[in-house]
Amino acid sequence: MTIPAKEMSEVRSADFEARFVEDRRRVEERLAVLLAPQSEEPRSLHGAMRYSTLDGGKRLRAILCMAAHSLCGDPHRESALDAGCAIECLHAYTLIHDDLPMIDNDDFRRGKPSCHKRYGEQVALMAGDALQALAFEILAGCGAPAPSVAEAVRILSRAAGSRFLVGGQVADIEAGGAKSTEELVRFIHSRKTGELIAASLSIGAAVAGADDGMRLRMHEIGRAVGFAFQIVDDILDVEGSMEKVGKTLRKDDKEGKITYPAHFGIESSREAVSRLIAAATSGIRELGDDGYLQSIFASIAGRSS
Amino acid sequence: MTIPAKEMSEVRSADFEARFVEDRRRVEERLAVLLAPQSEEPRSLHGAMRYSTLDGGKRLRAILCMAAHSLCGDPHRESALDAGCAIECLHAYTLIHDDLPMIDNDDFRRGKPSCHKRYGEQVALMAGDALQALAFEILAGCGAPAPSVAEAVRILSRAAGSRFLVGGQVADIEAGGAKSTEELVRFIHSRKTGELIAASLSIGAAVAGADDGMRLRMHEIGRAVGFAFQIVDDILDVEGSMEKVGKTLRKDDKEGKITYPAHFGIESSREAVSRLIAAATSGIRELGDDGYLQSIFASIAGRSS
Repeated sequence: MTIPAKEMSEVRSADFEARFVEDRRRVEERLAVLLAPQSEEPRSLHGAMRYSTLDGGKRLRAILCMAAHSLCGDPHRESALDAGCAIECLHAYTLIHDDLPMIDNDDFRRGKPSCHKRYGEQVALMAGDALQALAFEILAGCGAPAPSVAEAVRILSRAAGSRFLVGGQVADIEAGGAKSTEELVRFIHSRKTGELIAASLSIGAAVAGADDGMRLRMHEIGRAVGFAFQIVDDILDVEGSMEKVGKTLRKDDKEGKITYPAHFGIESSREAVSRLIAAATSGIRELGDDGYLQSIFASIAGRSS
Repeated sequence: MTIPAKEMSEVRSADFEARFVEDRRRVEERLAVLLAPQSEEPRSLHGAMRYSTLDGGKRLRAILCMAAHSLCGDPHRESALDAGCAIECLHAYTLIHDDLPMIDNDDFRRGKPSCHKRYGEQVALMAGDALQALAFEILAGCGAPAPSVAEAVRILSRAAGSRFLVGGQVADIEAGGAKSTEELVRFIHSRKTGELIAASLSIGAAVAGADDGMRLRMHEIGRAVGFAFQIVDDILDVEGSMEKVGKTLRKDDKEGKITYPAHFGIESSREAVSRLIAAATSGIRELGDDGYLQSIFASIAGRSS
């Protein structure tokens, strides 16, 4: 007896969900080992690093890295797991520094006090600095062949630097109150969020020893996914605020932040997400994805938190 | 006619001085190329990165890296130059973050306004973050064989992380007002300054493709040099303040910082410097140094600024 197509698709999607949950568990478990124990001096610093990294994030970037690695056919899953953890450490550092009073001044992160509220500004700054170093230390020791390691370091450092992640963050800060232009929206979005998600996929490919062509295609697909991810973030911010109309103005708008919905409207933003995810889905299918990455991309388009 | 020993030594020391000046010039020139141009967006960020890196530092760390590389007999000088520049970027980032109001609150650095005084705190924070990423990007692209690159990234990231550089800085901040113990003095000094100087030598060896034994011996020698460097710093701080007795209390003392002279006294501190530099000098001579590294070590012991 064959399983009807619709049920088959449900079975597969349940499988993907289980794989996602299992991947996330592995990342969480491995991060807890890779981070120095809280008992090690200086305890405040190591406590802050653990507090802000082991906080039950979605682990999207690590999982994209592991999935891309698996798609490239490399059996050494441990290397990809460590590379994914490295990216999560880098991501955690950016959140700590973004939350600092001098930047976004956010008191909460994922429902608990942000790092500086819990450990003070000095330790939070330093925990972020140390997490960036740790990201490269983990990558250097991930166990992949040296050419793959060197390539992965190149990709991550570039994504993290002034031309991408930090550059996008500075442009975002400085745009406060400025007139939003299409060029500016794209400059900020592609850099602030997009590039690290793109790097997650291409680092997975690099660690697997994939050739330049494969790595670059992964990176391009990741850019589309990352751009979509940021637009969804902005849409959720607007919609979340609409539920509370009359209570507080929405945060991005209040601070005059440049967002996609603010510039193009909600409807165009939703269309852009669909278009970007469709392109990424078709691209990754061509590269031989078994459906796992496609299901992750779909969940990004449909996420509600 | 043979040149008498004393004159010979003067000739050599003039040669070393010329080599040091030439190495410094090469580092300065190369850093200006490796840093993104000021005209690239975001201009404030790229301006701040250049402002705080191209500021006429001594370039001790880069030069130690280049000299160690040369001692190991690798002819590819360009790789060592880039690795040295990477270490200088990392060093520059730590100075920017240390000067921030929330840490040391220093308004001046090498006779000009510190980064946050010139560019504001937000951009200064971000310039530091981007310089750390750039350090690893430069290292990844330094052109050495991949195993050397991976090893150099491992050494630098470890030195920069929570177990060394950042850990020492946090311990230093938290020690304010605490009772100074010999253990604490050594913990802070070896981590805050010593490890990056040690890493400079061992990265030079790694980039040259030296074996583990050579790298580790370089690293040990570098630790002695780095410890001596920090003690000299503290002595200079005390002596500089003595010249102005009655005007201002010396900075370290005022802030209750843990220093070697404060704990052991000036005389013991001077003896410690002599002992450390003598050990490093004898160690590096055994590794085949032609005198260049010995002259740099001697200049650290005898420096007055």
